[in-house]
Amino acid sequence: MNKNPKIGIIMGSDSDLEIMSEAAKICEEFDVDYEINVISAHRSPMLAHEYISQVKARGLKIIIAGAGGAAHLAGVSASLTTLPVIGVPVKAKTLDGLDSLLSTVNMPPGVPVATVGINAAKNAGLLAMQILATFDVNVSQKLEEYKHKMASEIGAKNKKLSEIGFKKYLEK
Amino acid sequence: MNKNPKIGIIMGSDSDLEIMSEAAKICEEFDVDYEINVISAHRSPMLAHEYISQVKARGLKIIIAGAGGAAHLAGVSASLTTLPVIGVPVKAKTLDGLDSLLSTVNMPPGVPVATVGINAAKNAGLLAMQILATFDVNVSQKLEEYKHKMASEIGAKNKKLSEIGFKKYLEK
Amino acid sequence: MNKNPKIGIIMGSDSDLEIMSEAAKICEEFDVDYEINVISAHRSPMLAHEYISQVKARGLKIIIAGAGGAAHLAGVSASLTTLPVIGVPVKAKTLDGLDSLLSTVNMPPGVPVATVGINAAKNAGLLAMQILATFDVNVSQKLEEYKHKMASEIGAKNKKLSEIGFKKYLEK
Amino acid sequence: MNKNPKIGIIMGSDSDLEIMSEAAKICEEFDVDYEINVISAHRSPMLAHEYISQVKARGLKIIIAGAGGAAHLAGVSASLTTLPVIGVPVKAKTLDGLDSLLSTVNMPPGVPVATVGINAAKNAGLLAMQILATFDVNVSQKLEEYKHKMASEIGAKNKKLSEIGFKKYLEK
Amino acid sequence: MNKNPKIGIIMGSDSDLEIMSEAAKICEEFDVDYEINVISAHRSPMLAHEYISQVKARGLKIIIAGAGGAAHLAGVSASLTTLPVIGVPVKAKTLDGLDSLLSTVNMPPGVPVATVGINAAKNAGLLAMQILATFDVNVSQKLEEYKHKMASEIGAKNKKLSEIGFKKYLEK
Amino acid sequence: MNKNPKIGIIMGSDSDLEIMSEAAKICEEFDVDYEINVISAHRSPMLAHEYISQVKARGLKIIIAGAGGAAHLAGVSASLTTLPVIGVPVKAKTLDGLDSLLSTVNMPPGVPVATVGINAAKNAGLLAMQILATFDVNVSQKLEEYKHKMASEIGAKNKKLSEIGFKKYLEK
Amino acid sequence: MNKNPKIGIIMGSDSDLEIMSEAAKICEEFDVDYEINVISAHRSPMLAHEYISQVKARGLKIIIAGAGGAAHLAGVSASLTTLPVIGVPVKAKTLDGLDSLLSTVNMPPGVPVATVGINAAKNAGLLAMQILATFDVNVSQKLEEYKHKMASEIGAKNKKLSEIGFKKYLEK
Amino acid sequence: MNKNPKIGIIMGSDSDLEIMSEAAKICEEFDVDYEINVISAHRSPMLAHEYISQVKARGLKIIIAGAGGAAHLAGVSASLTTLPVIGVPVKAKTLDGLDSLLSTVNMPPGVPVATVGINAAKNAGLLAMQILATFDVNVSQKLEEYKHKMASEIGAKNKKLSEIGFKKYLEK
Repeated sequence: MNKNPKIGIIMGSDSDLEIMSEAAKICEEFDVDYEINVISAHRSPMLAHEYISQVKARGLKIIIAGAGGAAHLAGVSASLTTLPVIGVPVKAKTLDGLDSLLSTVNMPPGVPVATVGINAAKNAGLLAMQILATFDVNVSQKLEEYKHKMASEIGAKNKKLSEIGFKKYLEK
Repeated sequence: MNKNPKIGIIMGSDSDLEIMSEAAKICEEFDVDYEINVISAHRSPMLAHEYISQVKARGLKIIIAGAGGAAHLAGVSASLTTLPVIGVPVKAKTLDGLDSLLSTVNMPPGVPVATVGINAAKNAGLLAMQILATFDVNVSQKLEEYKHKMASEIGAKNKKLSEIGFKKYLEK
Repeated sequence: MNKNPKIGIIMGSDSDLEIMSEAAKICEEFDVDYEINVISAHRSPMLAHEYISQVKARGLKIIIAGAGGAAHLAGVSASLTTLPVIGVPVKAKTLDGLDSLLSTVNMPPGVPVATVGINAAKNAGLLAMQILATFDVNVSQKLEEYKHKMASEIGAKNKKLSEIGFKKYLEK
Repeated sequence: MNKNPKIGIIMGSDSDLEIMSEAAKICEEFDVDYEINVISAHRSPMLAHEYISQVKARGLKIIIAGAGGAAHLAGVSASLTTLPVIGVPVKAKTLDGLDSLLSTVNMPPGVPVATVGINAAKNAGLLAMQILATFDVNVSQKLEEYKHKMASEIGAKNKKLSEIGFKKYLEK
Repeated sequence: MNKNPKIGIIMGSDSDLEIMSEAAKICEEFDVDYEINVISAHRSPMLAHEYISQVKARGLKIIIAGAGGAAHLAGVSASLTTLPVIGVPVKAKTLDGLDSLLSTVNMPPGVPVATVGINAAKNAGLLAMQILATFDVNVSQKLEEYKHKMASEIGAKNKKLSEIGFKKYLEK
Repeated sequence: MNKNPKIGIIMGSDSDLEIMSEAAKICEEFDVDYEINVISAHRSPMLAHEYISQVKARGLKIIIAGAGGAAHLAGVSASLTTLPVIGVPVKAKTLDGLDSLLSTVNMPPGVPVATVGINAAKNAGLLAMQILATFDVNVSQKLEEYKHKMASEIGAKNKKLSEIGFKKYLEK
Repeated sequence: MNKNPKIGIIMGSDSDLEIMSEAAKICEEFDVDYEINVISAHRSPMLAHEYISQVKARGLKIIIAGAGGAAHLAGVSASLTTLPVIGVPVKAKTLDGLDSLLSTVNMPPGVPVATVGINAAKNAGLLAMQILATFDVNVSQKLEEYKHKMASEIGAKNKKLSEIGFKKYLEK
Repeated sequence: MNKNPKIGIIMGSDSDLEIMSEAAKICEEFDVDYEINVISAHRSPMLAHEYISQVKARGLKIIIAGAGGAAHLAGVSASLTTLPVIGVPVKAKTLDGLDSLLSTVNMPPGVPVATVGINAAKNAGLLAMQILATFDVNVSQKLEEYKHKMASEIGAKNKKLSEIGFKKYLEK
């Protein structure tokens, strides 16, 4: 939690916290200030309304909203601010995340939600970094390093697989 | 449109009006006062917030909300009032209404939406009548008649089919 | 179980009882008389027919019907009474509740079922309370309190999250 | 329509008649007596109840039931008679028949419906013939001829394709 | 396993045996001779071809075929005999039985498969009994008793629920 | 088409152009320089590789990528640049856009695609504007005006509906 | 149609011919001998059995099989030959090809079908060319040219788009 | 891992290795040289590009590519080589493999992927053998033996089932 957050992470229920914390960890890894709140579009609509209506004036740049089922939190956020809203469809107890995905992504013309994959809060965090990086050279540089590191890790795994063979690789 | 409406019919876009007007026609058929408005949860959120927050104080008894795609209007309504909210999933241009249905019906615990079938605004109107009828003998009586009439119409069609056979029946 | 029940809760199998009991608990929480029965549309059709045909005359106001798979109990109920019928699609062993949902919600014109989310018997109970509240000030007042309490609980969780941070919050 | 029908064809709406008449045509082609009725499980439940309860005593051997959406007619029939019930999921205006299929086929233990493909009333008729043929040598013989004729027709088409090539074949 | 079987139960893999044995148990409960075989349409096509081609001449009346995934066993059977073929879509490791269901039920005109619900081998057995009962008074009588017993069991459970309440009922 | 584009709009086929041009129109409406190209990830992979690898160095800020079916263009773009990539799932000839949506949105950890609704290129354009607006006051101001205009248009339609009633409104 | 065909194209119905002819056209474009037949797995099973059992001995290298609905033709072929079988799921009248796809692709261990996209007979033809090319330098060379031509066509379209702008491009 | 591999097995993540190793085991069983690599289309795109661009020159005959979610590895491979590419849709954490399947199979005209079932790496290996066998008599002979062995195993299981009955068979 930080004094002058750039990223506001919100979620519909504290049962979504374990998944949504992946977005917070990305912010920390990139040294970007953020805040994280449990705010339900359905169960605490006034709080949601009040929070979203003020994020732009408070200096936030991006909202990351995670919710499951008839997942309206990202859409409600996008209706109340012109900040980019990144939606994370959180898998609920039935339908394997399909309902969460469809109710997050299929927004009407005029009110986009930048939807990432089901439960993909880490990617939501990275997308927020990419947005900041469009004008922040520092974050941009870190993203390049992150991308190189990913490729190196794959390369290292592949080298190991090639050295020890798939049978030993699978034993671990 | 009436002075002291019992039923508030709302929809996310005037492109939903042809479908949602079926609910209004049921109100007229049952002589129940209603009002009908185009209010988008996403494109006119303040209007939606203001409208829903006042319906109970204004004496309305039931909200009927129709929307398509990431259909949030019924859910947003249910978050802001304790009146029963009937949701009509309106089929959008893709996915044949499945997205509309799932984003209307799978609400979180504490905030129900009484969902009817895809595009089933007529049934939304009848469900509203059934709710009024729980304490209104007049509406209740009309519902009984409506039910008998439906059965009679089936009976009449069946009689005709039996008399002329399916080949002639299909010729018309 | 009560002498003069307002709400009739029925389900297709006693394997649905754990889920459907959530509706009963809401009735108790709101001090509303109810009755609860295991009645299968498919395996005990005469019992279903007899029970539903009498609920209105017996003074019940609302039916809550839960069933899974080719879930016909709510539809059969709606065909036999003009009382509002709330359908709870109960998740069966395959297809994650999608079959239960579609066979509950997509009713033909003239015979609505007020469908709530998959396994959402608690919301069915609350929707029943909302219906009663359209004419019962006492229930209406309790619903307002229930809504405030939900929002407060979210607020309290959010305050705690803000105080201890997401890492400690997740440790519990 | 015949005096001593063996097959009872029913459907939920006369809008299903064009599709369901394919079953009737098979009966005629096989010289098997049948009757055909429009009977809605939802809109004319008493008629459905009365009709199904009497089919066995009236000497019918098989019920063919077609319906769309939350398609309950086959299931309701199967709940009220021990005759084999063949279900035809009729494609409704949305969801491309998936709802009709799932609400026809996924019946609870104890109450089977012999489901054929979406809109496949012709196959429902043939399945009825196969059931009769288990004890009726005459129908059995006609089925063998029908099967041979199908294979011959494919063979003839294939011969023609081989003679004129696919380009000329497609020109017609 | 019996000398003069009326019912031939087949399945694509012995991993389907636990599910398909429910059909065999129904045959035993109704004292109807049956045989049960593991025959894969894909892995042992000659065996399948040979077996199915002879069932009618051997005096069998009905085939019950269970398979999963791209479930072709019922369809292959139906292509090779005019006996009624009952298809049981067996849930495979992915897609929750939807692939099994669609590849069993959506047969082309001329070659029906009487499809029951996913994993519903018990219902396949009962459907076979219903088919036999169309001309066998003894089986027909047992089906009536079976149906009454089902209703009685529901009635008994309901009585118990009414006596002890849902809380005690759930404790067991 | 502009000299120093900020936004690069790409699509897998010129058959997607009519839909994707909606994103270009938003850029024009907001006076933001853009470029638009037909580049297939599958049929012109070297061109795609070359184009994407250079966009950041050329000064572009955001990629908007539209494709249908096994829609890989957005994912391939995201793999080759750290710029934010907005994915537009374009509805192909079958499956109603579901395949396009799933193959665009469900990206692996580390490589996000900001997915908008099926065919929602207009929203992709607006999302790009929201991203630019995080650091561009001019665009930010235009977005506020756009949002107000949307709400006003809904308000105007609603006023007209209230004045002339739904029947006259539908006549036009 | 050729004397010593390498490719055998088969389909379940002549209504699939227009789609499946795309595979034949690829064979012609690559100067590869092929034959094309209408053979139904369900309606002409003996013909299918006989045809498939002989293709390897007759010198064919690859089977391309197209069918819709419960699409078994590719699977039946794969059960009867060790030649590679390419399956084309043909979109049937309902479910938009999903049933055809699932019943073609999800084959049991031991019996693969090389499935291409829904209605993608052209790709089936190209896949057959790729298989031949693994040992045929001539076909391999033509595939390289085909690939270059595809990329060039995209490049040409892109150049034109860049020259005339999207508005003029769309006017044509 | 071999000196002159014919088959290149690649996968998007080492978490896919357990499944994809089934393809390698088939290569070993058939004494066909192969290599196996972890190469992500999204996280190590340069490595993927480099690897695929060289496989044909290096003498490989077939690529087997497995990936999950928005599974692009097979498609990216097919865009960069004219070798046949066999795609294995690997089931990811949500949606039960449906997203993996659709994003692998529905490729645009000109760029086929030979898709096998969800998680069906064993079948991918066998399909590769079938492709090699089109010109390699040795592999062809082994495939015939493999097919006979499969049928024999089914026959043996069936014999045992017939001897000991299903109850004892299930006890083991």
